[in-house]
Amino acid sequence: MRKYIIGVDVGGTSVKIGKFNRAGDLLDKFSVKTDLSNHGANILKDIIQAIKENIATDEIIGIGLGVPGPVKNNVVIHCVNLGWGRKDLEKEVHSLINDENIIIQAGNDANVAAAGEMFKGIAKGYKNVVMFTLGTGVGGGIILDGKVVEGVNGSGGELGHIIVDQRHNFACNCGKKGCLETVASATGIVNLAKTRLAHSKVWSPLRKYEDFSAKKVFDCAKEDDAIGKQTIDEAMRYLALAMANVSLTLDPEIIVIGGGVSNAGEIILEYVNKYYYDYVNPFIKKANIAMASLGNDAGIYGCAYLIK
Amino acid sequence: MRKYIIGVDVGGTSVKIGKFNRAGDLLDKFSVKTDLSNHGANILKDIIQAIKENIATDEIIGIGLGVPGPVKNNVVIHCVNLGWGRKDLEKEVHSLINDENIIIQAGNDANVAAAGEMFKGIAKGYKNVVMFTLGTGVGGGIILDGKVVEGVNGSGGELGHIIVDQRHNFACNCGKKGCLETVASATGIVNLAKTRLAHSKVWSPLRKYEDFSAKKVFDCAKEDDAIGKQTIDEAMRYLALAMANVSLTLDPEIIVIGGGVSNAGEIILEYVNKYYYDYVNPFIKKANIAMASLGNDAGIYGCAYLIK
Repeated sequence: MRKYIIGVDVGGTSVKIGKFNRAGDLLDKFSVKTDLSNHGANILKDIIQAIKENIATDEIIGIGLGVPGPVKNNVVIHCVNLGWGRKDLEKEVHSLINDENIIIQAGNDANVAAAGEMFKGIAKGYKNVVMFTLGTGVGGGIILDGKVVEGVNGSGGELGHIIVDQRHNFACNCGKKGCLETVASATGIVNLAKTRLAHSKVWSPLRKYEDFSAKKVFDCAKEDDAIGKQTIDEAMRYLALAMANVSLTLDPEIIVIGGGVSNAGEIILEYVNKYYYDYVNPFIKKANIAMASLGNDAGIYGCAYLIK
Repeated sequence: MRKYIIGVDVGGTSVKIGKFNRAGDLLDKFSVKTDLSNHGANILKDIIQAIKENIATDEIIGIGLGVPGPVKNNVVIHCVNLGWGRKDLEKEVHSLINDENIIIQAGNDANVAAAGEMFKGIAKGYKNVVMFTLGTGVGGGIILDGKVVEGVNGSGGELGHIIVDQRHNFACNCGKKGCLETVASATGIVNLAKTRLAHSKVWSPLRKYEDFSAKKVFDCAKEDDAIGKQTIDEAMRYLALAMANVSLTLDPEIIVIGGGVSNAGEIILEYVNKYYYDYVNPFIKKANIAMASLGNDAGIYGCAYLIK
């Protein structure tokens, strides 16, 4: 009897796989290494093999996949990180698992993480959710009326590439300048701190290091270091600006902040709230901003949500 | 027999009323003056009286209303221009028309205009539409999957208040600074031109006037005047930035530009396209930007769409 939903979060280093029951409870999880050789040609095969080793095919209701690239109607347009070009995930996974009755759904990883937080995380009970994932880059996910906003090119929720900075105009990996990602990702926060150090003579513990992480900048801010505080203030002001502009577009019920950078904790909300309400006033009265609660599991929960 | 849909576009000066058949063909239109006395207490009464004088109540399928304020579930939160506070439009109109079988729906005027362009205008055939209405202010409307995005506070599509300008920081009527409205509305374009004239010694026909309109600035740009061209370039760059940020959020099928300022014509697309594709590249390949086609009737068509 079919009783399990499989959530598959495909990353550039490893693939996280979760086994869920129909209610969306996570029963088991395992992972496989992402084989980037040969333009990622083995990735799907490895995933399906790992699933088959752990779960009988005829017990599977469906498989949801989250991938790091734009997805439209279960077709990924391209995944630079995986070496993939256009790929019909529904068709390829169906053919690999050889069971037409298994439902296959796919989504962009950041959109899927937002779905995960709505399904079983901090945004549970809401149907209109925006999520910003602050990591090496900045990802974004949008859920309206319980449905992922894929967009016509599969580029719904590319919130990391909203242009917010007209001052530094740091170059982004995407080829543009001034994207949110260049000032609010882990890399962006380090960019801002280094710029600030270079243009100031104020002492900061950050000057002890040739290189440092965003976490170190947050730590300095928490310990009342002026450069640390100014940097976090600036980064979170840009984040608040992007959140405000998305709020004025969609007026969502809740905005969730996740990703590795969010481990810095409540300090993020403290600085974001300092600006957000001024940026949205008088239109948005009480938008709910919250830290994500599922951590790295948001992706697999969201993949399960795609099947539910 | 019920066979007519009534679209009612409530403005601060007049109320436009359209009589449509079930298919959404406009059969007749008339208007009443907006009575702003006594906090707009007579407005709805005047509208219903005008409808009753023109159409037999038992022939009416439904009445759709567009109002200049945030609307959530047919309740307008406030309409500063009309003197209205919170108002349950469905309930009040039902009670005035005294026929429970008439469907009443209401929406924000800019959202409704977007629905109108989708229903019978330039965006016909699309279901995911963003509209910017450039007038004295800047309005915005968003339709996803054929449904108006109202938002949790009724503030979905407040695109005129997206913050795009961190340079001039002109004060907006909303109380914030740097909103799109301060640089891309008719007023905003004049703001930009005057600032440019004050900071430059270059001759321009605009210097002949103590005061001038946005139309005059467009006319100068069309006639190759440097100040005119630079002003329109700057205003349309801000508009393109807002469009790009909305595109990176929603990845819509089409973006429509309407409102009085759009009468300037193709020059708007020429300047917007100059920036838009750079701002969205490489995420959005072929977003469709188009000039609105229904003019002042977009509102009544959109109101009819609410009932359809």
